[in-house]
Amino acid sequence: MTAESNTLVISKAAMQLTFERILLSNGLSEAKAKICAEIFTINSLDGIYTHGVNRFPRFVKYLKGGFVKPDAEPSLVSKFGGIEQWDGNLGPGPLNAIHATEAAMRLAKEHGIGCVGLSNTNHWMRGGTYGWQAAKAGFVFIGWTNTIANMPAWGATDAKLGNNPLVMALPYENEAIVLDMAMSQYSFGAIELAAMKGEKLSVIGGFDTAGNLTDDPSEIMKSTRSMPVGYWKGAGLSLLLDILSVVLSGGLSTYEISQEEVEYRLSQVYIAIDVSKLSNHSAISVAVERIIEDYHQSKPINDSKKITFPGERVLNTREKNTANGIPVLKNVWEEILSL
Amino acid sequence: MTAESNTLVISKAAMQLTFERILLSNGLSEAKAKICAEIFTINSLDGIYTHGVNRFPRFVKYLKGGFVKPDAEPSLVSKFGGIEQWDGNLGPGPLNAIHATEAAMRLAKEHGIGCVGLSNTNHWMRGGTYGWQAAKAGFVFIGWTNTIANMPAWGATDAKLGNNPLVMALPYENEAIVLDMAMSQYSFGAIELAAMKGEKLSVIGGFDTAGNLTDDPSEIMKSTRSMPVGYWKGAGLSLLLDILSVVLSGGLSTYEISQEEVEYRLSQVYIAIDVSKLSNHSAISVAVERIIEDYHQSKPINDSKKITFPGERVLNTREKNTANGIPVLKNVWEEILSL
Repeated sequence: MTAESNTLVISKAAMQLTFERILLSNGLSEAKAKICAEIFTINSLDGIYTHGVNRFPRFVKYLKGGFVKPDAEPSLVSKFGGIEQWDGNLGPGPLNAIHATEAAMRLAKEHGIGCVGLSNTNHWMRGGTYGWQAAKAGFVFIGWTNTIANMPAWGATDAKLGNNPLVMALPYENEAIVLDMAMSQYSFGAIELAAMKGEKLSVIGGFDTAGNLTDDPSEIMKSTRSMPVGYWKGAGLSLLLDILSVVLSGGLSTYEISQEEVEYRLSQVYIAIDVSKLSNHSAISVAVERIIEDYHQSKPINDSKKITFPGERVLNTREKNTANGIPVLKNVWEEILSL
Repeated sequence: MTAESNTLVISKAAMQLTFERILLSNGLSEAKAKICAEIFTINSLDGIYTHGVNRFPRFVKYLKGGFVKPDAEPSLVSKFGGIEQWDGNLGPGPLNAIHATEAAMRLAKEHGIGCVGLSNTNHWMRGGTYGWQAAKAGFVFIGWTNTIANMPAWGATDAKLGNNPLVMALPYENEAIVLDMAMSQYSFGAIELAAMKGEKLSVIGGFDTAGNLTDDPSEIMKSTRSMPVGYWKGAGLSLLLDILSVVLSGGLSTYEISQEEVEYRLSQVYIAIDVSKLSNHSAISVAVERIIEDYHQSKPINDSKKITFPGERVLNTREKNTANGIPVLKNVWEEILSL
């Protein structure tokens, strides 16, 4: 128990076992329950609670509701050269995503670059998971998913766009540089978490139901109108990511997903590039090192705040949470134990 | 001459001939002068004056300065499957970019997806040019370039990041949907144009030399600290785009380019996907049409402002400027005539 009375501390092993037990009793095979439990646990260990422990109850709810099919496997729809299209058959999102990332890497080994379109899948939780997966295996990764509509077009009042997270990753030292960004200024998970904690957002994060700009996360959840990254620019990028996920996977669009009862039947894209096939392969780590070295020499506005690259702070959080246990909101853990 | 006394109107044909004549007298072959002149003219016709007519004098200055080699051709460095790396040999940026886009499309025809890394090239002017090129030929396009440092990391005071424009495009009806976005809230060209016109920006666009947020474009030009799209998010995406352009091309980084006398020796990435090779090929145009139809039904905040997709308004501007001529700032045109 930490100083904050609304927070518990759960060890990695205890969290993973708890998740595994619950998933087993909800129809996942032993092997699948193990992988899913590990992903939810590592996301939490890495500090991405919004797509780890906090999201676990909804994942179980979707299993119980039949939206996530515990035993479904992805099936190959088509193949041409370095491109494959897979149908996720509504299997667990993280398992489909791992499969699609592996397929993209396999294609990249053969063609230098590989692209997988995945239709009819479920929420992949933390997109960065697959960036880390590919980068740690030696690949550049670019991937994205569409979502339900939760963001208005720029200049509009009604949510027509998803926040469609985009992931870019590459190997770095023994770890990775991993960018994982939703097209809203705050991910839906981050808005949910702030609302759960009763905190305000650090900058304007969307609109209230009256159409005013607000930093109050619970107001944004009511209006479902979050702020696109960079106003018109993030709105435009979100639209393109949705369209390309539909084109490349043959699956449903944000518009179509938003007609469904819950957020499911998503479309995703996974692109991998095999760095070992590039002629400059042996010079890459020095080149990237030099960029990061210069970047780290940025003069901070606030001397106590180190300038970090995407994914850098994750390693510190991972280390801290491995040593001290994973902080979990008490009401979240109680809900999980009751599942 | 328009009502605005500081603006001239130049016909497409007159502009193109003027550009062609100047390029011919600066060492470009007839064929190359023609293509470059056409690109600068069409960018202007499409309303992207910042990377058309307004940028032309600097292009000529770089030719005269030996930074842009008028007769250099790109050379193949390496090839594996769907990936090629080319050295731009400091040839004219737009010509190298057209070449790289064609190479990516050629690779995509064979492998479904193609990726070209281009090192040692020059400013491509308007990235959207190559998005239109690929999309009109039936390809999905994803491409980006690095730039000199002109944007601070989030939380930093000194510019370490480029604004690294990202382009995404796909065929749509007989035209294209083309997103062309710099990672700064405003492209450097847009900031220059507003400063040239003595106008303020519509939202905060960066910092002044004292470190305060400002909407004054000339202050941002002095500080070279523009605002990343979505604060920390655009800063992170910019860093990844720079790193990936270096990894995939074997060329120089924003950090290294910023040590040079002027902005040249850039690194770029061109990814093309051959839509005709996808199993859902025949269903794509209807699927995209449906997304755009829904998007167009967004409720505008301001009834007089139609919600448009990236690239949509370009067609109106193109039509208008084709009919009425291209508006050009008088001082810009006088400078061009004196070249």
